[in-house]
This record gives sequence, C-alpha cells and structure tokens, in this order.
Amino acid sequence: MKSHTVYRTMTTEERREFVRITEDVQQAVEDSEVAEGLALVSAMHITAGVWVNDDEPGILEDTLEWLDKVAPPSWTDPANDTAKSLLPDPGDYRHHRGGEDNGDAHLKNLLVHHQVVLPITGGRLDLGPWQQVFYAEFDGRREKRLVIKVIGD
Amino acid sequence: MKSHTVYRTMTTEERREFVRITEDVQQAVEDSEVAEGLALVSAMHITAGVWVNDDEPGILEDTLEWLDKVAPPSWTDPANDTAKSLLPDPGDYRHHRGGEDNGDAHLKNLLVHHQVVLPITGGRLDLGPWQQVFYAEFDGRREKRLVIKVIGD
Amino acid sequence: MKSHTVYRTMTTEERREFVRITEDVQQAVEDSEVAEGLALVSAMHITAGVWVNDDEPGILEDTLEWLDKVAPPSWTDPANDTAKSLLPDPGDYRHHRGGEDNGDAHLKNLLVHHQVVLPITGGRLDLGPWQQVFYAEFDGRREKRLVIKVIGD
Repeated sequence: MKSHTVYRTMTTEERREFVRITEDVQQAVEDSEVAEGLALVSAMHITAGVWVNDDEPGILEDTLEWLDKVAPPSWTDPANDTAKSLLPDPGDYRHHRGGEDNGDAHLKNLLVHHQVVLPITGGRLDLGPWQQVFYAEFDGRREKRLVIKVIGD
Repeated sequence: MKSHTVYRTMTTEERREFVRITEDVQQAVEDSEVAEGLALVSAMHITAGVWVNDDEPGILEDTLEWLDKVAPPSWTDPANDTAKSLLPDPGDYRHHRGGEDNGDAHLKNLLVHHQVVLPITGGRLDLGPWQQVFYAEFDGRREKRLVIKVIGD
Repeated sequence: MKSHTVYRTMTTEERREFVRITEDVQQAVEDSEVAEGLALVSAMHITAGVWVNDDEPGILEDTLEWLDKVAPPSWTDPANDTAKSLLPDPGDYRHHRGGEDNGDAHLKNLLVHHQVVLPITGGRLDLGPWQQVFYAEFDGRREKRLVIKVIGD
C-alpha cells in the first residue's frame, strides 16, 4: 500500500470564506502515484470544514448567508429573529466566557463537517462533473492547516 | 490491497426521495473479495447525499419534512415562517439567477453530506442492527450517479 | 495492508452526552501497528454520532442546547418558538407512532454524522492541536456500540 501526506497552510482574507482546493487534492493524488484508493481531505482545526459542492459563486454566497442564520455569530447582530433564537439563551455562547468570539464557527464546523473522503480511480479523483472540493473557513484571517492523506495502490 | 469500484445510476420518481442501497453496497463488498477494509459510498452530485439511518418510513418522512424547513425550497411556498426566514434575503437563492431552482438541494447536500465510509469486517459490512444505507436525492427525476469504492485485503 | 478492529460499548449517564474517545482511538492505532493509514470511528447506532471538536465544556454545552433547537425533542417542551416550528406538523414525529420518543435523535445523528475518518501518520493520529474525538450520544442511558477500524501499513 502506498501513502502520501500533504499539509497546506490556509490564510483567508475574510473571516468566513470558501477556498477551492480541488487542484491541490488532485496534485496530491498524482504525487502519491496511487491508481486505486482513497483521499482524505481534513481541516486540522475546529472552526473550519471541507465541503464538496459546485463552484458557483451564488451557491457559495447563499451558503455563507444560510450558515449565519442556522449557526449565528454573536460578534455581529443576528441576521433575523430566527438566527437570534438559535443563539444560546440568554444571548451568547458559553464558549465566549474565556474571551473567544467564535462559538458560531464551532457549530458551522459541525454542520459542514471537518473532512471528506474521495475516491481515486485510474490515478484521478473520481468526482462527478460539478463536484469541487472546498476548504470552508469560519474563523480565518490567520494561518490554519489542512491535511490531505492519500492511500491505495 | 484489493479495490473494487461500482457505479450505480439512480433515477428517483420523486424530486426528493430516500432510496435504500444497503444491499448494493453489500454486493459490492462481496464482489470485491475484501475481508477487512473500508467501503466509500458517495453521491457524484451536488444535490444528493448518503445517509445511514433506520429504514422506518416515519423517520424518512419526518426527515424530508424537517429538511424542507431547515433548508427551504423556493420553488414552492415555505413550510412556515421559520422556513421563510431561512431563505436568503430578500427571498430567493442567488443560485437561481442562472435559471436553476434547486438552491435548497445544495444546502440539503451540506446537511446530509455526500458520502459515508463503512467498515468491512470478515467480508461483510460491519453495521449496527438498525443501520441501513440510503441514497438521499434532493433534486431527482433524472439520471444521477453514485460510486461505491471498496478497498482492503 | 494491516487492519485492526475495536468495538467499544458506551453507556452514558445522560440521555444526551458527549464522551471524549480520542485516547481510545489512539490506543487502537497503536495496537494496530499501522504507521500510515486511516482510522474510521463510527457509531453503530442511528441515534448517535461522532464529532471532532474542542474539549471545552462551554462548546459542548452550547452544542447540546443548539441541537435541541435545530432538531427539537418532543418528549419535553420545545426550547422556544423556532424549535417548536421545526417539529413535524402538527407537533410530533411520525416515528413516534410506534411507541418511540427519540425522533429528534435521528435528526441529530444526521446533523453530527455517524462517523469520521482520521489520518494516521508516523503511527499517531494526525490531528490538529485542539482536535479531540467525541462520541455524541443522543438517546443514551443504555448500552450502545462504537467501532474503530484502522487500516494501513
């Protein structure tokens, strides 16, 4: 069995941002010389995730807006009454007692999930025609790490 | 290391539908002759997912209703005020500017996740007694693909 | 390829509870003698999950409160009007017709996801500094099983 591990440091300009990494994962697959196997793509942080979806700007913007309603930040005003009601009672995250302000980013990590596993067939990522891999940052503007682990034969 | 890859084409009758595929995955495991390993089951689309849960009709119907509240469609009236408030402001998905109407299906893909990885032990899927594997379609009535990739020894 | 499978029985004191299992997974990795590979950590039940996040009590308490709003139980009063509106219409889960009361736990399983796949590098779990592995119980106080499957070389 072959294995190949690549670490990438991500530093987003925005606090929340989707960064397309399909090409990085494909490069790791090629460098691994694995023809048949699996590629694990995993955020090494608890306030980020990995999502496979369409690289269509409208979808990505819709998703960031929706994530702020379902997993609302408290460092800015809630988007609407539903977002406000999904904050912890009586209004702020217990996690913020220690001086943090990223409670929402932990819930977004839960929603998006921190990793994906992708099939490798014939030496290529075996994705559907619209599937792109995104690093999903929810508390950025600082260095964070991502690991790509390829195993197979 | 052995590997075995199976593609299945899914065409649901309903726009949203759960389709049980446990037996397809088990068949792929048997055909792979892998005794110890992993089975990746992955939708190859951005508006579908894979879920492991109980094959109890009430649960599946509850889940479709709930998904329409949390990730609301705009091609039909929102289920209630909460669903309405979780649509993008001021009421429709940016994604629909290009003529699509399936913005909600992308968010449902995020919630359900597009893939699962299952253990294989002694040549069988190593699932709990109530765990069944479902293909989760959120924008169906057309041909879509699923990949099952088995690796191991 | 080496493989190693460990089953753990979990019996939580609370109906909903996060149980840290990072050390169990690390022990399984060591016992497997796998240096480079993957560890699958998977609940064998449909009302539990596995989450990788920070072992900070505030986060875990925030998350349980939030899960009860987004995926509301009906065996207790809904947390607020939003939670109430996310219950099935007209107020209870179809799943409960059979005498169950854990419909919410199936939706929490969907949100958290029942499994994670973790990288193994140099014989160790290759996690970020704050990443801990949690078994997430949503219908506990009884024996439930978890499987850890390590594969690699």
